[in-house]
Amino acid sequence: MSVWYYHSHMTHRLSQRMSAVPSSFLREIFTVLKDERIISFAGGLPNPSLFPTQAFKRAADAALSEAPQQALQYGATEGVPELREIIAHSYARKDGIDVHPDHILITNGSQQGLDLLGKVLVNEGDRVGVENPTYLAALQALSLYKPSVIEIPLTPEGLDTDALSAAQNAAPLTMLYTIPNFQNPSGLTYSNETRERVVAALNGSHTLLVEDDPYGEIRFIGERRTPFLAYTDEVVMLGSFSKIVAPGLRLGWMVVKDAELYAALHTAKQAADLHTSTLTQHIVYRYYRDNDTDAHVRAIAHAYKQQKDTMLAALKEHLPDDVSYTDPEGGMFIWATFPEAVRTAELFPLAIAEGVAFVPGESFYSTGGVTNTLRLNFTNSSPEQITEGVTRLARAYTRYCA
Amino acid sequence: MSVWYYHSHMTHRLSQRMSAVPSSFLREIFTVLKDERIISFAGGLPNPSLFPTQAFKRAADAALSEAPQQALQYGATEGVPELREIIAHSYARKDGIDVHPDHILITNGSQQGLDLLGKVLVNEGDRVGVENPTYLAALQALSLYKPSVIEIPLTPEGLDTDALSAAQNAAPLTMLYTIPNFQNPSGLTYSNETRERVVAALNGSHTLLVEDDPYGEIRFIGERRTPFLAYTDEVVMLGSFSKIVAPGLRLGWMVVKDAELYAALHTAKQAADLHTSTLTQHIVYRYYRDNDTDAHVRAIAHAYKQQKDTMLAALKEHLPDDVSYTDPEGGMFIWATFPEAVRTAELFPLAIAEGVAFVPGESFYSTGGVTNTLRLNFTNSSPEQITEGVTRLARAYTRYCA
Repeated sequence: MSVWYYHSHMTHRLSQRMSAVPSSFLREIFTVLKDERIISFAGGLPNPSLFPTQAFKRAADAALSEAPQQALQYGATEGVPELREIIAHSYARKDGIDVHPDHILITNGSQQGLDLLGKVLVNEGDRVGVENPTYLAALQALSLYKPSVIEIPLTPEGLDTDALSAAQNAAPLTMLYTIPNFQNPSGLTYSNETRERVVAALNGSHTLLVEDDPYGEIRFIGERRTPFLAYTDEVVMLGSFSKIVAPGLRLGWMVVKDAELYAALHTAKQAADLHTSTLTQHIVYRYYRDNDTDAHVRAIAHAYKQQKDTMLAALKEHLPDDVSYTDPEGGMFIWATFPEAVRTAELFPLAIAEGVAFVPGESFYSTGGVTNTLRLNFTNSSPEQITEGVTRLARAYTRYCA
Repeated sequence: MSVWYYHSHMTHRLSQRMSAVPSSFLREIFTVLKDERIISFAGGLPNPSLFPTQAFKRAADAALSEAPQQALQYGATEGVPELREIIAHSYARKDGIDVHPDHILITNGSQQGLDLLGKVLVNEGDRVGVENPTYLAALQALSLYKPSVIEIPLTPEGLDTDALSAAQNAAPLTMLYTIPNFQNPSGLTYSNETRERVVAALNGSHTLLVEDDPYGEIRFIGERRTPFLAYTDEVVMLGSFSKIVAPGLRLGWMVVKDAELYAALHTAKQAADLHTSTLTQHIVYRYYRDNDTDAHVRAIAHAYKQQKDTMLAALKEHLPDDVSYTDPEGGMFIWATFPEAVRTAELFPLAIAEGVAFVPGESFYSTGGVTNTLRLNFTNSSPEQITEGVTRLARAYTRYCA
């Protein structure tokens, strides 16, 4: 199928792959979210009051004083060595995993990692496994390479590994995309047992396991789980500074132990934009060198836990008992499940009328799926806004039921 | 054809599109270029002593003082409004062209613009016209979308428009990629008459004209030529801060007047990396707001003219008369043509042995092509290095001829 468009005197034909891109609910409601009267639980923005602004000013000044010519000149496609070393070392320090700087490829956020993986691995029609529900923008990035998307259900313990094995037996997956910690949108975390079973289910196949871990550091309660990277080298880990430093930097990384896959991703990164901003990398390197960044991440987790607790308490107080919620161990999202007959897409306009926004759960499914769920972000609203927003949501739900 | 690779216990299959990517000569000789004894005319690096370091320090401090939360938070896919306004306004000011901020899409350098255009417009086998010779990395970016590359020769006045019309008549091009000012690698500039004829040759077709203009501001002599954007709206202009501010920022833009093409590129940009660094955009906006940036660009052009004059004088003094050179009106490159029997790829190892590097001309052709040319960059070497490097090149050529 071709997509044609006509505009004034022009006609250009868009490529076939553009017709495969799903629309983004958040983009569609962008204008609504700019209305300051709306309390938004819809986006996925970190709390900007926690950005390390003063430390960043010092780091920017240091980068432009110590190494102005390196910070402003073209750089290597793989990234700034000092920053890659800090990232590699963090895996040894936190998880006891042997990662070398040569395994690190710097990207424009983990989103770019998804685009590069699609480019390098996915032929049209290839089977790509995703959690069901999953992260909207991952589906968007991968859809451009026209895969056949295979949805694997989530259980409270993580991916349904029986369903994974069944899908794998039907025809091997090219790639399995997962968010094992505080999953977006569900807030769920894989148990270590589930992790082992996922690795076992893929063992001996050509399937690349992709471990997207933007929230892993932001844990409120419970013990740190073991990354897939500790169980197997047959994995690509996507990391990001978006949630632990600031998202506007667009700075992330891939951990790729396989040398030939690394080389292919390096070629694709070079073709995409030569390299990621050297200035940004030099600033973030110095921010890590000169500050207690672990303490900063603990401060973020502490604040987010309070925001999460405030939201859960308000939900339990103001909404009926037949609505249930995930209670995430970390991250940024709560997933609410309403009685089966409720259509949250129809609840949405009533909520907007009351002055509160969320994302209907069906936006996180590749092919329709469950219609009685919704995702709530708790990190970008004050405790007062959270309580007020939840009372508005409760009013909207009362009107919906009436 | 599939590409398989094996590594320790792993086997993943790379996508078919990866087998279409041409290798990069500069990447292959990367290790050689790190040797400090080599004078390199091979790369395309701006002169780092001209980076506006002090002004940048002030701009970074201003961005993080005036708008820390906006500069560090997620931003709009299309870019920071204040920066898009400065870019749009520059076309009115310099060329009298009506460009609105809504036509500007911020990218990670103009390289990303090429990737997005390939993604949005090119189906496998589509005909994409390029200048012959052309910019290596453009071919690399577009090759991932598996076009049929149609090479159109260059004349001293710019693209050979008879050859363009013949190609267009054979079967319409999806896209024509051009660098009309101080072309990379040839240093040639299209005359205004050639520009009019290129536009006429494409008139009434679906072909998108792509105008890559990274060097346009860096003019040494002669009068500013008229951008394609002044003749027709059926064009996408790729702009960049790499040569007029600093390349490490990875900051460029696209001018796209067609609203539907803009929307498709916006979707592809969002899928690729959500948006370009807001911090970098906020810094560059303030750098433009608070400094005489026109004076800075004039200083760059003045310095590059001296470097170019030094190189041309040395070439004429030290190399035989049967070697000819382009004398660029701006930009960063001189193109040398040796007698027809000379193979510059074979001259290259002799030059490295003497301690000087260049890029053999055949690297800039999609399908082999001329073998007796080479590209010389004059912006990243001091006058002393330029003179010494050219004497080394002359020694290598004497050895080659012996």
